[in-house]
Amino acid sequence: MAQIEPFHVMEMMRRAAELETQGRDILHLEVGEPDFATAEPIIAAGISALQAAETHYTLARGRIQLRQKISNWYQQRYHASVDPERIQVTVGASGALQMVCWSLINPGDEVLLVDPGYPCNQNFVRLAGGTPVLLPTSASNGWKCTPEQIDAAITSKTRALLIASPNNPTGTVMSRQQLTDIARLCEGHKIALIVDEIYGGLIYDQADFSACELGSEVFVINSFSKYFGMTGWRLGWVVSPERFVRPLEKLAQNLVISPPTISQFAAEVAFEPATIAILEQRRQQFQQRRDYLLKTLPNLGFKIESCPGGAFYIFAEITQLQRSSNDLCQHILEQAGVALTPGLDFSRDHADNHVRLAYTIDMADLKTAVQRIAAVV
Amino acid sequence: MAQIEPFHVMEMMRRAAELETQGRDILHLEVGEPDFATAEPIIAAGISALQAAETHYTLARGRIQLRQKISNWYQQRYHASVDPERIQVTVGASGALQMVCWSLINPGDEVLLVDPGYPCNQNFVRLAGGTPVLLPTSASNGWKCTPEQIDAAITSKTRALLIASPNNPTGTVMSRQQLTDIARLCEGHKIALIVDEIYGGLIYDQADFSACELGSEVFVINSFSKYFGMTGWRLGWVVSPERFVRPLEKLAQNLVISPPTISQFAAEVAFEPATIAILEQRRQQFQQRRDYLLKTLPNLGFKIESCPGGAFYIFAEITQLQRSSNDLCQHILEQAGVALTPGLDFSRDHADNHVRLAYTIDMADLKTAVQRIAAVV
Repeated sequence: MAQIEPFHVMEMMRRAAELETQGRDILHLEVGEPDFATAEPIIAAGISALQAAETHYTLARGRIQLRQKISNWYQQRYHASVDPERIQVTVGASGALQMVCWSLINPGDEVLLVDPGYPCNQNFVRLAGGTPVLLPTSASNGWKCTPEQIDAAITSKTRALLIASPNNPTGTVMSRQQLTDIARLCEGHKIALIVDEIYGGLIYDQADFSACELGSEVFVINSFSKYFGMTGWRLGWVVSPERFVRPLEKLAQNLVISPPTISQFAAEVAFEPATIAILEQRRQQFQQRRDYLLKTLPNLGFKIESCPGGAFYIFAEITQLQRSSNDLCQHILEQAGVALTPGLDFSRDHADNHVRLAYTIDMADLKTAVQRIAAVV
Repeated sequence: MAQIEPFHVMEMMRRAAELETQGRDILHLEVGEPDFATAEPIIAAGISALQAAETHYTLARGRIQLRQKISNWYQQRYHASVDPERIQVTVGASGALQMVCWSLINPGDEVLLVDPGYPCNQNFVRLAGGTPVLLPTSASNGWKCTPEQIDAAITSKTRALLIASPNNPTGTVMSRQQLTDIARLCEGHKIALIVDEIYGGLIYDQADFSACELGSEVFVINSFSKYFGMTGWRLGWVVSPERFVRPLEKLAQNLVISPPTISQFAAEVAFEPATIAILEQRRQQFQQRRDYLLKTLPNLGFKIESCPGGAFYIFAEITQLQRSSNDLCQHILEQAGVALTPGLDFSRDHADNHVRLAYTIDMADLKTAVQRIAAVV
């Protein structure tokens, strides 16, 4: 427990809220949550489920109707055949990551994690008794870990490798070939490969791809929160190798009993063409915002070393601005009323000279934010 | 992980579902979930929240509006003063139990648990690196642990005592005096007292009482699932000593991000007089069902050694029926189409000669179930 650090982004959010209480107008580029409310068809399905009084527990693995629709989605969008039996619905991707860690890790096991990366992953590994081992990446390599690097980091204690694609905070997207090579390497070393696709679907410059295409030995984690815009509903899923289906179900029966029922009913329409049309529009808006920031940030002294191909984050280098990331974030929050996240939450080596910007506000506000930042840096 | 046993009740549920698929009519006395759908005012509040597109994350601790209402509830119903700052909203009571275990237990710590009890509690302790130590109780003592027994079980490694009141599966309710004595004992030994009030409010023969009345050093866990009838919404809470507020918040930020948002909005009306009136009617129905079973089960050979004062369970002794609990449950399921839970899930010492009946079906069905059981035992 004591090893779990609070998120620095939470400190920024706390201070931003304080300033707002004082009447200041704050623009939020620190929050990893789409600004859009959940798409109308999903909300309507939630209301229908409530009107039908669908308020009881479901199976711990989630309703088969939803698992079947997730399976169809993999078939339609990725031409990947995923047996619904291998799909378990979870309380967000957080719930999925925890259960996968519990099912894989024995005390003392090592788990390889990409740095920069989502800070909670280290804690999920620790809580399961494992040791997180960081794979440092750099902008010069597109923030990607390489097979050589993974190979060198594997020890007799290594149990798994966790890769997020797209990555938070760098927006890095692994290509099919890169993940294929890594999957083969993991198989050779008999270590598990966990691919975190929480930002799956939010991809801008290349064809969409899912690690489910790589076969049935890869753990693939996803969420209804980001692309599907269902953050507050707390719903995600994991696709696991067949022999992990029962252990994961057993864990779910103990730890969660049932994922939220109304959310499950609502999520059933998330894959409908009418919903996807809305989500794709939103994806285009995210892309426009990203492109705007890619163009303007460098003029402000924020260096974008590697183009982020997915998610809704930019991990910018700030050496030119001559402040540490924490100082800079505080300065911009206090003076410009714009909240960013210091690199501290995401990286060991790139903490001090990087900040994360989340483009989760609309274009008009984003332009204001850029103007305000320009005035104080 | 390997130490986590699947619930035997799940096996019963699986077999019951199989029989239903074959066209058999099965009466379910095995499920720990009220048969009632969520009360209308709560559903209506959920629909309003959805219509207002309240679909974003909340604070990890839950919305202050809900925490304030929980605090008011303690004041009004129990005359207990609970600062909303000490209340954290969780993903069900399961989420609360896990986080309390994480925040308290260091590897090797012992946690005292009452036997018979809720089987997951042992797993929550184990997952946090602790060792569950059972306090065996017996019907002759009303299934209650005593201060003397607790005192004798405490070692230098003991970190906490967890007591559920009302208890699952025995329905035992601790009196204010008994919990006061135990709280004093725990304080003297500097071990934490966790009182699980998941079935709080579902009390039939004595005045309602909450461990929150005992002061601010007790962890009190509750849920919107049982008395408030919100199982599928996945919402509970924990009241903690002040110094655990930040550690619990930090855990929630890492593990859950946000409890389900719509559920939080809906739960805000759970304490309104109109809702409580419905819940109290339901409580009376549970009491009528309990009283019916208390009267009829003994004629069938199910001995009720100690009157269950709360929850919606009867833990019955079955020696007279000359089968092990597992055999008996299978026999009654196959022959009478009534699903029960063998004692195996709840107790070490009372596994073979006890079964649990959940009176979570309406009176007409309950009478049918009793007739059907009578015909095969």
